[in-house]
Amino acid sequence: MYQAMTSLGHAADSTYVGPIELPGDPKGASILILGAGLAGMVAALELRKAGYKVKVLEYQKRAGGRNWTLRGGDSYVELGGARQDCAFDEGLYINPGPWRIPFHHRALLDYCKRLGVRLEPFIQLNFNSYLHASTAFGGKPQRFRHVLADYHGRVTELLAKAVNADRLDDEVSAQDKEVLLASLRAWGTLDRDYSYRPGYFSSEVRGYEKAPGGGVDGAPLPSTPLAFEDVLSSRLWRHLSLPLQHDFQHTMFQPVGGMDMIGKAFFREVGDVIEFGAKVTAIRQNENGVTVTYVSDGAEGVRQASADWCLCTIPLSILSQIELDVGAPMRAAIDAVPYAASLKIGLQFKRRFWEEDEAIYGGISYTDLPIAQISYPSTDYHKPGKGVLLGAYSFGLPATEFTSMTPAERVALAVENGAQLHPQYREEFENGIAVAWHRVPWTLGCFGLWNTATRAAHYQNLCAIDGRIVLAGEHASYVNAWQEGAILSSLDAITRLHKRVVTGK
Amino acid sequence: MYQAMTSLGHAADSTYVGPIELPGDPKGASILILGAGLAGMVAALELRKAGYKVKVLEYQKRAGGRNWTLRGGDSYVELGGARQDCAFDEGLYINPGPWRIPFHHRALLDYCKRLGVRLEPFIQLNFNSYLHASTAFGGKPQRFRHVLADYHGRVTELLAKAVNADRLDDEVSAQDKEVLLASLRAWGTLDRDYSYRPGYFSSEVRGYEKAPGGGVDGAPLPSTPLAFEDVLSSRLWRHLSLPLQHDFQHTMFQPVGGMDMIGKAFFREVGDVIEFGAKVTAIRQNENGVTVTYVSDGAEGVRQASADWCLCTIPLSILSQIELDVGAPMRAAIDAVPYAASLKIGLQFKRRFWEEDEAIYGGISYTDLPIAQISYPSTDYHKPGKGVLLGAYSFGLPATEFTSMTPAERVALAVENGAQLHPQYREEFENGIAVAWHRVPWTLGCFGLWNTATRAAHYQNLCAIDGRIVLAGEHASYVNAWQEGAILSSLDAITRLHKRVVTGK
Repeated sequence: MYQAMTSLGHAADSTYVGPIELPGDPKGASILILGAGLAGMVAALELRKAGYKVKVLEYQKRAGGRNWTLRGGDSYVELGGARQDCAFDEGLYINPGPWRIPFHHRALLDYCKRLGVRLEPFIQLNFNSYLHASTAFGGKPQRFRHVLADYHGRVTELLAKAVNADRLDDEVSAQDKEVLLASLRAWGTLDRDYSYRPGYFSSEVRGYEKAPGGGVDGAPLPSTPLAFEDVLSSRLWRHLSLPLQHDFQHTMFQPVGGMDMIGKAFFREVGDVIEFGAKVTAIRQNENGVTVTYVSDGAEGVRQASADWCLCTIPLSILSQIELDVGAPMRAAIDAVPYAASLKIGLQFKRRFWEEDEAIYGGISYTDLPIAQISYPSTDYHKPGKGVLLGAYSFGLPATEFTSMTPAERVALAVENGAQLHPQYREEFENGIAVAWHRVPWTLGCFGLWNTATRAAHYQNLCAIDGRIVLAGEHASYVNAWQEGAILSSLDAITRLHKRVVTGK
Repeated sequence: MYQAMTSLGHAADSTYVGPIELPGDPKGASILILGAGLAGMVAALELRKAGYKVKVLEYQKRAGGRNWTLRGGDSYVELGGARQDCAFDEGLYINPGPWRIPFHHRALLDYCKRLGVRLEPFIQLNFNSYLHASTAFGGKPQRFRHVLADYHGRVTELLAKAVNADRLDDEVSAQDKEVLLASLRAWGTLDRDYSYRPGYFSSEVRGYEKAPGGGVDGAPLPSTPLAFEDVLSSRLWRHLSLPLQHDFQHTMFQPVGGMDMIGKAFFREVGDVIEFGAKVTAIRQNENGVTVTYVSDGAEGVRQASADWCLCTIPLSILSQIELDVGAPMRAAIDAVPYAASLKIGLQFKRRFWEEDEAIYGGISYTDLPIAQISYPSTDYHKPGKGVLLGAYSFGLPATEFTSMTPAERVALAVENGAQLHPQYREEFENGIAVAWHRVPWTLGCFGLWNTATRAAHYQNLCAIDGRIVLAGEHASYVNAWQEGAILSSLDAITRLHKRVVTGK
């Protein structure tokens, strides 16, 4: 298959080249895998298939790690002891961790295919969602299509003016000039005189004041663009380029029924080798093997498990607090990576008012309020009854401020914020649940935050095999915060480990 | 509901304000509806509910009209007698007519909701699909994301240069200048010096040469933009603005299982009043009522049906050939509107190579070849086994040329054209079916083609009630070629007709 792909020159820009091959006989070698997130379960699946004796220790009582979905009936206890019982109706959920899959995450998508995880489009770009700045346009949210069309039209109009006035003749050849002008008219949907103004062309992008209709009163009325200076000063243009970013380009996906359908699919494959409720306290190695000490939440108390090798996928935020026999370089790498603050809040409403009242189907509205984003469900469109949306997805300082509140305070703030975009919140809100990742006991943060300096100093040391121990997870990748990073990291780690096992090198 | 919408200032730009209300008693009035497409069936549904005696005459042996899906086992005979038997596998289909629904087509979407038609996203914009010009880039198709990123980046860079060189100071105030430059950097994903060049920023939009990966070899390699002069001269930029157009903005929809799920849903409601196989030959009216003569394909031969009123939804291309008692203004209007040529071809392949080899999930590739478009299915992603894509969607001259060929020749040309974008066509093609709308016996064209002059001269005369006859259909709307136009036209026509019935005005 990949031969065909590359010979066509059509391969997607992914380092994943199809199902991993681990040739050679491990001769009964055993491996302990720490963590039953995607990195751990991918390794368990592939190493068992390659002939290893595999055991997985997992702190939680479920598989998947950050691949996680909260539904009605679930409860969640955060650091500090605050417990939340999710009260969503049947069929409604939020994904507190990863929630979308780019088309170029070939490894994750291939596992979805092989494990029979059904996918549906995740709507990242919705031209009818809102952009909101609390200090601009009187606090009134603007449709994405209005801000996009008007920013885009004015910017294109400006360039056409410069070109038409021969002010860019040093940059554009006479030959290219004519084509460039034609392209600007098309790309900016400008009028014949290269202006962006109320009328047919601009309304064909931003939408009409009165849409084309049927019968005697069917003639449309064009809409009026926003003033360019208002668009500029609102800074709402900051949100326009996100859907152009490769990681967020359509077509994106989500599993039908919740992101944890992926974790559950892996669990069906390797659940029999996972021991849940195992809190690792020490990881020791010598030249003969690895011994892991852990506190079991069963009756047994402190236990030990040994194996020839160890793949450790524990997040660095946690691992840095565990006794670990590795050399100084890996130790320093583990300690060098801070974890991102982020927060998600799911809110249940009595009805899907965003579809019914506002014609918003999936997608994301952006605001400068602490909630940062509101995301509408990319599934069950037009379904009668209640609905759950993502009422906040914050990073950085706002996330940290949310984290310092009680769960009930977080939900209340999300409802207050959201009502500035959707006044229906006040009537329709029912209940909510808030996951602040710095208080998630088993990660203490959302994902590893590398920068250029820490990459240069520590990344290779983090990934290198240290004796009989190798690390994996999104933190050991350049695809941080994404499930693809966890899987690619795991595939790389077990490939190198397996080579050492079968060749001794 | 609409009260709430408008008071929030959030209403979508649609003239549809919710389910139609037809107050007043028609006192047993009867109506003949000609055509069981969406316009006819909407009218049948609403008028029966309002108290009318309703009968529908339909030429075909199925309801839906251009709302039509072809599946394995279906056969289709075009003008001239060529018969095609669709050989698609179970579950595979094409929609020869309408195939996508914009979020702002509120009337159609409301009927989908009320009639329980399940919807799924139609992928219009796929950044990983192809743009292809047979004379550019050595005939090699280019990813949409490459052309978009490079055109967009270079154009933004040019404008930033003009602004930075103070060449637009007459257009941009000193105050706006700084914000404009910041916005251009963000919007064009330019480097800190406002240049668009190979590196992190451009690769974050166009994709990397080697994508970010996991483990020791995880570092990415940036990709190299296409030369701007090549992008310009290729004219591939012509395709960039389409997904920005309001009619094609995400979120778009299609019914799960085929567009005819809508026609079937209406049929469930009003099927009992439809007489199929009825070819209308004359529509007569006097001051007491309307009498329609039709040839029944049953044993009866020529028959007549009478009613107090008539709503005629027969396409103008057909209606202009039928005896019709209306005044000169409506007659002239009927004769004034030509019908568009268009063509769609469905092709079945042994596997979904576009997903497997090329990471294309839904969306459309555009080419300057006669096929014009290739559209990949927006459903059943990753499904093993065979797949059907839309192998051609042409308008104008190429569609007319396709129409002059036999169905087998059309399919062969579509395969030959498509192989220039997807060489896998040669190995994987199995069978195809081609619908050339000028040869569809019951429409003789795809949709009514109005222009400014014909609108001014004829549109109101087409829509006005003539005695006891009123017309409806996409041709009697400003939303031509869309199902929304048919529905809005029908709702407007029956509202006016009902008013006349109950008030005499």
